[in-house]
Amino acid sequence: MIGLGRMGANMCRRLLRAGHECVVNDHHPENVERLLAEGALGATSLAELVARLQRPRCVWMMLPAAAVEATVAAISPLLDADDVLIDGGNSQHGDDIRRAAALAPAGIHYLDVGTSGGVWGLEQGYCLMIGGDAAAVARLDPVFRALAPGTDAAPRTPGRSTAGGSAELGYLHCGASGAGHFVKMIHNGIEYGLMAAYAEGFNLLRHANSGSVARQADAETAPLDDPAAYQYDFDLGAIAELWRRGSVVRSWLLDLSAQALARDPDLSAFAGRVSDSGEGRWALKAAIDTSVPVPVLSAALFARFASRGEDAFASQLLSAMRSEFGGHGEAAHPSDKS
Amino acid sequence: MIGLGRMGANMCRRLLRAGHECVVNDHHPENVERLLAEGALGATSLAELVARLQRPRCVWMMLPAAAVEATVAAISPLLDADDVLIDGGNSQHGDDIRRAAALAPAGIHYLDVGTSGGVWGLEQGYCLMIGGDAAAVARLDPVFRALAPGTDAAPRTPGRSTAGGSAELGYLHCGASGAGHFVKMIHNGIEYGLMAAYAEGFNLLRHANSGSVARQADAETAPLDDPAAYQYDFDLGAIAELWRRGSVVRSWLLDLSAQALARDPDLSAFAGRVSDSGEGRWALKAAIDTSVPVPVLSAALFARFASRGEDAFASQLLSAMRSEFGGHGEAAHPSDKS
Amino acid sequence: MIGLGRMGANMCRRLLRAGHECVVNDHHPENVERLLAEGALGATSLAELVARLQRPRCVWMMLPAAAVEATVAAISPLLDADDVLIDGGNSQHGDDIRRAAALAPAGIHYLDVGTSGGVWGLEQGYCLMIGGDAAAVARLDPVFRALAPGTDAAPRTPGRSTAGGSAELGYLHCGASGAGHFVKMIHNGIEYGLMAAYAEGFNLLRHANSGSVARQADAETAPLDDPAAYQYDFDLGAIAELWRRGSVVRSWLLDLSAQALARDPDLSAFAGRVSDSGEGRWALKAAIDTSVPVPVLSAALFARFASRGEDAFASQLLSAMRSEFGGHGEAAHPSDKS
Amino acid sequence: MIGLGRMGANMCRRLLRAGHECVVNDHHPENVERLLAEGALGATSLAELVARLQRPRCVWMMLPAAAVEATVAAISPLLDADDVLIDGGNSQHGDDIRRAAALAPAGIHYLDVGTSGGVWGLEQGYCLMIGGDAAAVARLDPVFRALAPGTDAAPRTPGRSTAGGSAELGYLHCGASGAGHFVKMIHNGIEYGLMAAYAEGFNLLRHANSGSVARQADAETAPLDDPAAYQYDFDLGAIAELWRRGSVVRSWLLDLSAQALARDPDLSAFAGRVSDSGEGRWALKAAIDTSVPVPVLSAALFARFASRGEDAFASQLLSAMRSEFGGHGEAAHPSDKS
Repeated sequence: MIGLGRMGANMCRRLLRAGHECVVNDHHPENVERLLAEGALGATSLAELVARLQRPRCVWMMLPAAAVEATVAAISPLLDADDVLIDGGNSQHGDDIRRAAALAPAGIHYLDVGTSGGVWGLEQGYCLMIGGDAAAVARLDPVFRALAPGTDAAPRTPGRSTAGGSAELGYLHCGASGAGHFVKMIHNGIEYGLMAAYAEGFNLLRHANSGSVARQADAETAPLDDPAAYQYDFDLGAIAELWRRGSVVRSWLLDLSAQALARDPDLSAFAGRVSDSGEGRWALKAAIDTSVPVPVLSAALFARFASRGEDAFASQLLSAMRSEFGGHGEAAHPSDKS
Repeated sequence: MIGLGRMGANMCRRLLRAGHECVVNDHHPENVERLLAEGALGATSLAELVARLQRPRCVWMMLPAAAVEATVAAISPLLDADDVLIDGGNSQHGDDIRRAAALAPAGIHYLDVGTSGGVWGLEQGYCLMIGGDAAAVARLDPVFRALAPGTDAAPRTPGRSTAGGSAELGYLHCGASGAGHFVKMIHNGIEYGLMAAYAEGFNLLRHANSGSVARQADAETAPLDDPAAYQYDFDLGAIAELWRRGSVVRSWLLDLSAQALARDPDLSAFAGRVSDSGEGRWALKAAIDTSVPVPVLSAALFARFASRGEDAFASQLLSAMRSEFGGHGEAAHPSDKS
Repeated sequence: MIGLGRMGANMCRRLLRAGHECVVNDHHPENVERLLAEGALGATSLAELVARLQRPRCVWMMLPAAAVEATVAAISPLLDADDVLIDGGNSQHGDDIRRAAALAPAGIHYLDVGTSGGVWGLEQGYCLMIGGDAAAVARLDPVFRALAPGTDAAPRTPGRSTAGGSAELGYLHCGASGAGHFVKMIHNGIEYGLMAAYAEGFNLLRHANSGSVARQADAETAPLDDPAAYQYDFDLGAIAELWRRGSVVRSWLLDLSAQALARDPDLSAFAGRVSDSGEGRWALKAAIDTSVPVPVLSAALFARFASRGEDAFASQLLSAMRSEFGGHGEAAHPSDKS
Repeated sequence: MIGLGRMGANMCRRLLRAGHECVVNDHHPENVERLLAEGALGATSLAELVARLQRPRCVWMMLPAAAVEATVAAISPLLDADDVLIDGGNSQHGDDIRRAAALAPAGIHYLDVGTSGGVWGLEQGYCLMIGGDAAAVARLDPVFRALAPGTDAAPRTPGRSTAGGSAELGYLHCGASGAGHFVKMIHNGIEYGLMAAYAEGFNLLRHANSGSVARQADAETAPLDDPAAYQYDFDLGAIAELWRRGSVVRSWLLDLSAQALARDPDLSAFAGRVSDSGEGRWALKAAIDTSVPVPVLSAALFARFASRGEDAFASQLLSAMRSEFGGHGEAAHPSDKS
């Protein structure tokens, strides 16, 4: 295991608990130390890591996307035919295809494994989306099985044939090189859409008292038609909790929302500048490439951009146009006659 | 219970199982018959229904939104002070406010109860979002408790105070009149957004083989930059199953998707004309009234409109404009020079 | 003419220039004074205004939507059969239908006239969208003709039959009561969409130098794949000017954008909090009522809401969810592993 | 001039009219023939074309994006230092940067010129967005000036300094290599947004009679609240014509819409399958790269994808989910209880 960040370290722990041996490596020696204490073997260099593994080796990189290229270049000359090299991070699937093709002549199997689970993965297991050579995937089955959540993580799907395959255990060989990261990319695109749906809904609930808040007299916005219909002060935490049971919108993300709202109903710890990782972007580019309409996934991504103020100049131009045709300054005149 | 459709009949059954007495009424005598056989008491008219109930009565309407107004008008003169009349269907929250105010002088408590659960509610329980007079809500606590899923339906939210209130049981007094249907309306708005996020994501996965499908030679669309990157034939059912365990996007709607895809991976039973009930629309109108941006919820609703062909004339006008400035017919010329 | 704001006063001036007589009324005596100096007759009350007009009268209200109801109530008892009462402001078309029906028994013709032109209307003329009784519309033809821009305002449409009707002059009887405001409402909806298209496009041009701006090292966003491709510092004013000639996107709104950008390329006079009048909202509600997908018009409206910070709580909840599943604070950790 | 399609041929004609000499080449000899008759010189091969031009040469390619790479490879060895090679088509700006850099060592100036004007360009002139080396751009000023519309194409922008530069003539050196196609790409992105705004608006007008069309009794959609408010049968051609004069939404695209609607109010010649060229897609990818929210531009693109049925599987999955939780088939049951 190369890379002992939040994900890599916990994945090691889960593997150790399952009785696997792990040799670990990380830029930060203290990350290695901590794992040694929990039963892993350490390696201070890639060469040492390779040396300590028995052939055929399996090397799992759990690194930021930007660090993968250099690590692949550094370690691949040290590997032998039949070894497996895994990128468990969030790379672009096109990079996987390229890297797998480059390593194939040397007999090195390059697998891409999209990994979901976050800080909860240690206890709940990791959902693994795997791409690459089928034989290599099959050989690593015990490793994937140890990392994955297992069948108990969700009730059996009615109507599913009994020979369910590994999907029911929480890992799946999705297809050829890149397939794992492709599926993970779409997973994250969906994730953005789901999160945005909840965010918009709870924002609406929070504004359900708009009728009781006096709008400024000279506002350019039309007054509410029926202020009496918007007088609710909802307990958002209780509603999130409520929906967790029996409603159509129950989900793990709702569980997390309920948790956050239970702790701090106003979410005042957050300024609302929402980051995005690369995968939501790549999913959108894949949609463009394949002519698939994704209005929801894109709206979710753009809302994040806007939350960071990236819409500022667009809004200024809107105000400027309004000023040109209406002859008035921003929010300074009572009518917007056009 | 007035109205023994899919929802009303099963709610009665759940109440009967919990030991409650129910008097039932429906336009269709055979619906009443069936419930009689399961222990309910029947009533062939609203008058008989009211007569068979002990005071203070509780009358629960489980009717299409369009039928509520007439039923309220017909039954309210038969009711006495302190009786409770419940609209458990999908009415607009403004109608609740109006009806509750109209019945208040007669001492009749009008409650609005947004109800989620669909065909699964009988076994799993119904998520109940309740609006109206607190005293009446409190009096009916045993009824709501019997219908709701109960605490076991979901694990305890970490960090939530132990005196959780009824939200943990799956029902909640959300606020004054209309609050129940307001919360249900937002619930359905979120539901549309969630469903669309999955739909777009799986559609993307299904198009992951675009690179292996030859685009027609004279197509006006640009060719794929990198066809080799889009050569995957994914097993969508297996991926849905996979994501149910350990992934960030796990949810009840994903469970249902897995179920549908396990049964028919091509979903060939469906033409893809997606209906929408009133609530997704009302949620959007509420957002407009309260100035809340809901790009995801609206995109989800509009995708349903478009699935029914309501975008046809807009598309024709786009083609017409392209023809005017480019001088070419629809998809008949190789370039789109503008 | 009742109401001498920006619109009403200039419309009077245009009517006076065309040789029409005008009796004017306004809350602010100084507004009336100014018009008297330019040849109008004044009236200090609605009664005086009605008294000074010859039968059959034509009374034109140019008032904020909120003031119309009271003015109609006050003036209608003073009017006689065959008089015409016009609402030239931005009312909801449903209100027109109601008011016209209420005044019909008294023989009063109620017309709704959507009016576009802003501060430019005095010189360029006003585009008039008229709804109501055909006979009354016909009688006022000289008034509409005087206010409208006339045929010279745009080149003849090729292929249009020579008997073009009044649309070529810039005014049109669109249909029965409410039709004028309905068409104006859609006009404003389109206006929002057009403005947003330019705003987004120019915002993109402004960010074309993203590759030369170092992204903060610990940013959670993926680094640019190809920074060298985003090194442009565009002169937005010159580009707007350029596009005014020969391009597909030329329009009056582009003319205004070019004007604003010529004056202040950074638009630093504007904070970017964009107001919206009621009509963009009503257009969206009409789309919901009639099941018409309007993803662009709605996105444009929601971008305005968001420019005023109405998305804040939604963004906070997104950050909160990310914190729950990723275990990290807002923009404080380098990876977004999920 | 290499490539005598709709654009290339007319550009030659415009150059010939302005007194420039042109040597022309095209795959189809008949295209060359036609131009010879109008005063151009012909060349049956690239070598002949290069040979017939005096040094320093200017070679203008007007080709589909897919044909540019091969043509550059074929012609560049034939060119000499100081020659100029122009790509006037719709290439990706990244390709320009790469090609310009590859040709620079040989002293060949590679310019990218985004060209707008369509079939109208011959008479009205072409809007030219130019990227590349400033000296080469300056040398070709007479050529650009001959192709561009000239100052008269639009009234002077008030407030613009008198030394307006070439933007007022309709051509502009936008910046370094790629800048021309970058600006053209954003231009097309905006174009899609504008077109969609009109398309949605006119579609709404066309549905303004929804209240007079009986909705099917068993429809799952909620009935219209107020059918009387939607009884208009609008003359869309007349409204388009009307808006051309004095309204805020007047534009060249509106002129074209008026033209199309005058000819055929139902646009029955069009099926509504709307093509898209590459540039709208690239604009969206550039937005993703630079973190710029473009909800309107993306919604416009996705509506085109959906018009071609690319949303089909997404819609099927929505119906499938509804069937799972509601227990009913598509549009076959009267309620959508969830």
